[in-house]
Amino acid sequence: MGRRLKVASAQLGAVDLADKREDVVVRLVDMLREAASSGCRLVVFPELALTTFFARYFYESQEDVDRWFESTMPNAATRPLFDAAAELGVGFYLGYAELSEDDGVERRFNSSVLVGPDAAIIGKYRKVHLPGHQEPLEGALFHHLEKRYFEPGDLGFGVWRAFDSIIGMCLCNDRRWPETYRVMGLQGVEMVVLGYNTPTTNIDQRPEPTHLRSFHNHLSMQAGAYQNATWVVGTAKAGIEDGHGLLGGSCIIAPTGEIVALATSTDDEVITHNCDLDLGTYLKQTTFDFARHRRTEHYSLITERTGASLPPG
Amino acid sequence: MGRRLKVASAQLGAVDLADKREDVVVRLVDMLREAASSGCRLVVFPELALTTFFARYFYESQEDVDRWFESTMPNAATRPLFDAAAELGVGFYLGYAELSEDDGVERRFNSSVLVGPDAAIIGKYRKVHLPGHQEPLEGALFHHLEKRYFEPGDLGFGVWRAFDSIIGMCLCNDRRWPETYRVMGLQGVEMVVLGYNTPTTNIDQRPEPTHLRSFHNHLSMQAGAYQNATWVVGTAKAGIEDGHGLLGGSCIIAPTGEIVALATSTDDEVITHNCDLDLGTYLKQTTFDFARHRRTEHYSLITERTGASLPPG
Repeated sequence: MGRRLKVASAQLGAVDLADKREDVVVRLVDMLREAASSGCRLVVFPELALTTFFARYFYESQEDVDRWFESTMPNAATRPLFDAAAELGVGFYLGYAELSEDDGVERRFNSSVLVGPDAAIIGKYRKVHLPGHQEPLEGALFHHLEKRYFEPGDLGFGVWRAFDSIIGMCLCNDRRWPETYRVMGLQGVEMVVLGYNTPTTNIDQRPEPTHLRSFHNHLSMQAGAYQNATWVVGTAKAGIEDGHGLLGGSCIIAPTGEIVALATSTDDEVITHNCDLDLGTYLKQTTFDFARHRRTEHYSLITERTGASLPPG
Repeated sequence: MGRRLKVASAQLGAVDLADKREDVVVRLVDMLREAASSGCRLVVFPELALTTFFARYFYESQEDVDRWFESTMPNAATRPLFDAAAELGVGFYLGYAELSEDDGVERRFNSSVLVGPDAAIIGKYRKVHLPGHQEPLEGALFHHLEKRYFEPGDLGFGVWRAFDSIIGMCLCNDRRWPETYRVMGLQGVEMVVLGYNTPTTNIDQRPEPTHLRSFHNHLSMQAGAYQNATWVVGTAKAGIEDGHGLLGGSCIIAPTGEIVALATSTDDEVITHNCDLDLGTYLKQTTFDFARHRRTEHYSLITERTGASLPPG
């Protein structure tokens, strides 16, 4: 029996436009208590967990956008969650829209915090890979304006020694990018925690069956887990928000890439696993012993080139 | 109906120590003819396709190693394959052990060639990610001495305009590394062709069920396909070679990450698919429009650091 970290993925069902943060926090606290009662030490909530997925709406005025943002964390609305964490001695990961002020300049990020069992913030992550568009797509039934409402994260992909492990964070679309996991893998990450809000419908208005979107969700996280021999905990916001479907499929993935716990609903749902933090060790010592096997001299395009450039002809 | 390339993955069953190259080539030619007769323009053979997987044996003398190598390609033994290709107007990918001479110095690589429908060599690849060990593992039932018998490839991950497409090559263990696909993806690759010889048993003598090894085989290729919106054709050497099991599972994978053709035997077996080369275009224009979404400023560890380095504490 190696080092263990019992973790929960706390999937959140729909949060409608009319729902108040305070009411969402009641649901989060309920799930935190459920997870704590089954012995979990860390609870992973979704991306932008406090509100509806507002990036699907086009707002002309910055004021209308800003009402979805938090300028402090914790704040009055989320205080009960932090208090419950401290009371129960359980940590959590929470995604939210962050409005920060930097030398008098307002900046907006799609962020997450890792919070310890004493309710202190251990680390912050700001989403690097923003999907979607800067401008609304004409004729679209919904938008995906993350590139408009947020700037790309400026903190990179850090890891933290916490929960007797090495924990990394990312958010939603980051999970599709192998670079995300690899940068954390090169820092010895043992568990990547991430939240997502993924529409059931293609955000670029392309024909794409929902089963394929669900497959891509799991495929990306499973490959990231295996190829870096790390646990991955992916937590969805799910259900139908004011008519707009969000993918569920929250899961806990072992360093072998296997899904060991899977949400079966599109509602509030807690799934747990008692993770053996040494399960990935054999892979880190063999197939993915990076020091022995990686050949960085052949990887230079990965950092030298942003977009694809085709061979002549 | 977009651009099409009908391709075959030509899985090869066991090749024993006693088998002659000439006899293996007869089997390859048979499969080439079968693929051509169903309209394929490109046939993907396995890694080290001409001999048994000799890296499982420890040889003291270089002479004993070198009998598994080819110092020219084509040569007398493989000439019939090249002749059949020219006759049929079908191209192929072939893996073999390459002994080259560079300024009077002998060099050994685990290589593959891409051969056009005129039997001319279009490109060569030398395996970058060599798995296994430099020295035999004590007490092991078999070895995996690729790091002893080969040097790491020095040609990088190129792509070639061929077969009205953009084709990239890699070999076996390369397929587990997301860097492999990404470097080709950044050159606009549309089809990655690769061969593999993967033992059914863990090569580091760790306990690992075969079903997991099969899952990792497909997971890595499916993720590489999806995350770069490219076709991947993976061809196994399969079956039992002198008592040593090799994984089958040869497959053709769409740019969506879906397996669209799968070998069901561990013998010589041809599977085909008429690949729509434009199927990945919607992904390359949206989710994986690298120019719009990649954030190379946060990827620097990928090339700066070879091995993992843990945070202090």
